[in-house]
Formats: sequence, structure tokens, C-alpha cells
Amino acid sequence: MAEFRKDLLTDRWVLIAEHRAARPDEFRDKAVRRIVAPCPFCAGHEDQTPSAVATYGENAWPDGGEPWQVRVVPNKYPAVQSDGHVTGITAGAQSARGRHEVIIESPRHVVTLSELTDVQVELTFLAYQDRLRCYRDETDLAYALVFKNARAEGGASLEHAHSQLIATPMVPCEVAQELAGAERFQQSRGECPFCAMLHGEMASGQRLVAATEHFVAVCPFASRFPYEVWVLPRVHGDRFEEDPHSAELARLVRDIVRRIESLLPGTAYNYWIHTAPLKRTSQSVFHWHVEIITRMSRMAGFELGAGYFINPVAPEQAANRLRSV
Amino acid sequence: MAEFRKDLLTDRWVLIAEHRAARPDEFRDKAVRRIVAPCPFCAGHEDQTPSAVATYGENAWPDGGEPWQVRVVPNKYPAVQSDGHVTGITAGAQSARGRHEVIIESPRHVVTLSELTDVQVELTFLAYQDRLRCYRDETDLAYALVFKNARAEGGASLEHAHSQLIATPMVPCEVAQELAGAERFQQSRGECPFCAMLHGEMASGQRLVAATEHFVAVCPFASRFPYEVWVLPRVHGDRFEEDPHSAELARLVRDIVRRIESLLPGTAYNYWIHTAPLKRTSQSVFHWHVEIITRMSRMAGFELGAGYFINPVAPEQAANRLRSV
Repeated sequence: MAEFRKDLLTDRWVLIAEHRAARPDEFRDKAVRRIVAPCPFCAGHEDQTPSAVATYGENAWPDGGEPWQVRVVPNKYPAVQSDGHVTGITAGAQSARGRHEVIIESPRHVVTLSELTDVQVELTFLAYQDRLRCYRDETDLAYALVFKNARAEGGASLEHAHSQLIATPMVPCEVAQELAGAERFQQSRGECPFCAMLHGEMASGQRLVAATEHFVAVCPFASRFPYEVWVLPRVHGDRFEEDPHSAELARLVRDIVRRIESLLPGTAYNYWIHTAPLKRTSQSVFHWHVEIITRMSRMAGFELGAGYFINPVAPEQAANRLRSV
Repeated sequence: MAEFRKDLLTDRWVLIAEHRAARPDEFRDKAVRRIVAPCPFCAGHEDQTPSAVATYGENAWPDGGEPWQVRVVPNKYPAVQSDGHVTGITAGAQSARGRHEVIIESPRHVVTLSELTDVQVELTFLAYQDRLRCYRDETDLAYALVFKNARAEGGASLEHAHSQLIATPMVPCEVAQELAGAERFQQSRGECPFCAMLHGEMASGQRLVAATEHFVAVCPFASRFPYEVWVLPRVHGDRFEEDPHSAELARLVRDIVRRIESLLPGTAYNYWIHTAPLKRTSQSVFHWHVEIITRMSRMAGFELGAGYFINPVAPEQAANRLRSV
């Protein structure tokens, strides 16, 4: 059984996925990391994963080089399934249809984005764009989230650097809330809230981390996590997958991860890309962005039971430290 | 600086609390648990905490017994502060006023609710009720959440069994969402959704874990976490702190924790009590309850970036296993 279930009161979706408990976990025993050998994501072990749906940088270095630089495969233990039954649906539940892919970011056994070469990190972000575009016309899907779990505390079950894409029949509530908030802001103030934030942060500079030709990295005013950084395009746009500057973005995100790891060596982190839903609606107001968070603080009873986040590092302090690296 | 900050788009509150980073953490180095000696919560070390605001079971056993059974003290490293400045408030921010207390559940160094004696667990829940009633008339507070973090992965920073109470000037969003959902349900269907759920679960039995004279324990249909259990009073009531059967509840919650620990020895867990806001509003529809969750699954990029929870144990299976213990 794998199904989405909706909470009666909060409209929150839960994915019941019993089969996921069977997947390998290199980090299960936290005292001694258990290597899943051979690592299924390393070049040469391609037969350990389902067949690739896309491969990038093949034979970039034919003389003794790697067979590929970035490789996208269906997740062997998918949280959602492309052949999900439509039967068995009860009130408030629907089968866990969707797509779940893994983007393997390097042929070599590296563990974090900061270790990728220029080619690898650029191809990784290009792969994100390709895969998002790929699902735009699938009628049964509403949203695709690209995200990365790095290191055990970040929720990674395999160490080898990788990202994931999960496409679902619903727009996830975090994205739906941002969309609704953006529309409210636009209606009341006549401008995109992300553009307003970007201009405000550029002017004040106190939460600014870095800026490149087309992107800005800031610690948001209401940062939930220590060293939370958002990367936004300077020019308004609702779709990451249509942005022509993904290579510049890739290098900037890698730079931010390097700065974070320089302050917090070996820290677990996550990032995800919030882009518009797969199906464009006429009045959609959105400004796509990347959200990067660290996992140095644990979510506990107050955070989960109340819905407040407690952040022990003020974003002004975080930005200041990240700028100084 | 300690302040609440509101996210522009999602109306989510974040508590920026830099001073919290200074608190002791017995679990910081995960490989080797670092004992904070002497444990400030053990009897005999009362001078290591701020003075008690309430003490229960004093001299219950005068002959060589403990000086108290349950002790409530202000948190030495509060997330919110009773003397929070009202100055320095900017748009979308307010000073982190509130109360933060620790309920020490035993004079001896035990680490989980299941190790408490009958007297200790009953006095612990009595203390919850007392402290909640205590804040009802404070004009600057809107809500008080009682919660427990057990073990490192549950967010505990000290091992000694304890719960906490954090009172805040706002109703937390998790509670506000449940309140809004309950009112919607009541208006559309003419009954309390919790009463409806309770009757449905009693009738079907498939997610029922245990039932006592006044309470029912069930795994909710849209359980977010493995072995999530909610305990609800059979008779509709919006305030936990007015329920006359707290001793029966205390023993049932301890029983549920024992069942969970029997299936998952040493598991980290949390629970919290959702009761009505401190100030009663005329049309408030609520049915207080306790939510117990385990922390065997990690929240990762998909959960945090999308807002979906992935639960690898179906609640029907969880209830079945918990019943069989």
C-alpha cells in the first residue's frame, strides 16, 4: 500500500509508504557508518540502479575518463509510483501516483555539492531543468520538487552526492502557501513580494550573502534554520526551468554550500527549488528561488507541536559570517 | 536579541533566539554522550536550576525518601522571556515575550516517561494542568503549549525526564490550523470533527490502540510519523486543564509510551497537548487531545521543502502492532 492521505483539519497531505522502510541506509547505525558496497551511484556500478532516463557529459574525457558526469535514474525505492493504482481510493486518500528520480551528481564517490567540478555542478542544474520540463505535459501531475539531502542528518540514505525529484498529483502545501501569499501581496501592494524583498535586501545589505550578474543570495528575514540562504534571480520569473543562466546559478549555489561548510565543517544540509506548478494558471504570481538550509538544530516538540521554528542564529549574524568566509 | 519574526508569505512565525545556542547539550557529540554532571534536574542539585515555581509530592516519603516528586522551574535558557523588551519592534517582528518552564518529572535520573512511578506520572500531568491554568489570566499571552522531548533525536538537550511549557503572545499556527479546520467542519457537518473521528475509530477498530473509561488512543488516519498516537477524551471538551481525569490520562499516556518502546527500544519521541487558547472565544470549537510521535524517520528535503510528511508505517499496521504488545 502506498497512498496520499489528507488530514481532515489542516488539509496537510501525508504519504503512507511502507515499502520505503526496505531501502538501504548507509547511516542507519549512526555510530558506525555502514558502507553499502559497491556504492550503486559510482561509475561502473550502473547495473545497481534502474536504467538511466538521462545521462550528461558522456565520454567528456574519453582517455581514461569517466563514462558520464551526471546521471538521472528512477529511484529504486520510490516514495511515489508511476503505476500507482487508481483503485482503492477512499475519502481523503488517493493512491501515491507520481515520479521519483535520483540525479547522481558525479561518477566519483564525493559526498557534497562543494566537491563537484564546474562541469558536474553545471550539468546537475541543467538536469534539474530538463527533468522539470519533461513533466510539464503529464496530465496526472501538478508539481515537481527538486531537492537535495546531504549527509545523514539531512536525511540522505546514501552518501554519494545526489539530488532527487518527486512529482506529485497535488501542489505541495509549502508551495501552495507561498503562491497564495504572493498573490495576496501582489493584490494589496501591486508588486511581487520576492522582487520587493530582493530590492530591500540589496539596499540594506545586512542579510546579503553574495550577488552575481543574474542572482542574489540572502539570509531571509524570518530564517527558520541556522544559515538559511535563499538564492533568487534578479529578474522576475516564475519558472526556474526556463532560466537561461542555470550554470551561473549552479556555481553560486556551490559557492554558498562551500561558505556554509567552511563555517560548519561536515554539516548536513538540504536545498530545494521552488518553481511554479507544472500547469501555468493565468494569474500566477511567483518568483522562483532556491532555499538552502542547514540541519545543525533539531526540530523538537515545540517546533512540531506548535509550528514555530526556533533559530539560534540571527540571519543578520549568519549573513555577516557567510560574507566573511 | 530574541524576537518573533513573521514570514511575509506563509504567516509562519520564527523565533530568533541566539542565546539558546549557549545551553548545555548532553547529546551534542553524538558518538559519546557527554554527561552534564551533576545533572541539574536530580534531587540534591536544586541550586543548579532557577528557583521552583511549583513543587509536587514534597516529603511524600519522609523516611529517607526524596524531597519532591515533580518540580517545575523556569527554563535557565528560555526560548522566550518574561521581561522581553517591547522596544525594537519592526514590521513583521516582535520581541520574544512569553514564559518557558521545565517540568522535572522525577527526583531520580530516569530518562523516559515509562520509568515514572504512578505518583510521578500523575503529578506530572497535574502539574501540566496547574501551569496552564496559571497563565489563563495573563493579558500578554495567547497560548501555552505543554510538550515533551525524549532522547537526543527527540530534541532533548538534557537526558533527565522532563517536559516543557512555552507560553507565547500568539496562538501557534499548528493550533490555529486545527481550530480553523474544526470550525469549518462544525459549520459544514454540524458536529465536532474530533468526536466524529472518535466514533468512527471506535466503530471500525482498525486504528484503535487502547481505550480506558474516559479516554481513547488511536493512530490517526493521516499519521505523519511512524507509530503516531493521539489520545482523546471520550466526552467532548475544549480544555485539557479542566479535565478531572488527568491521573487516568497520565497512566494511559505512559502505557502508550511503554508499548512504543517495547516495539522500538530506546526510541526518541515527543508528545504535546493541544488544548484551547488561553482566552476563550465564544464560538470556539475544539476537542483537546495529546499527540504522541516517534522520531525514527528523519525529516528531509522533500518533507521540509514540500510540506508532505512521508510515513513508512501505515497507521493500521502501527495500531495493530501497538495493540499486540
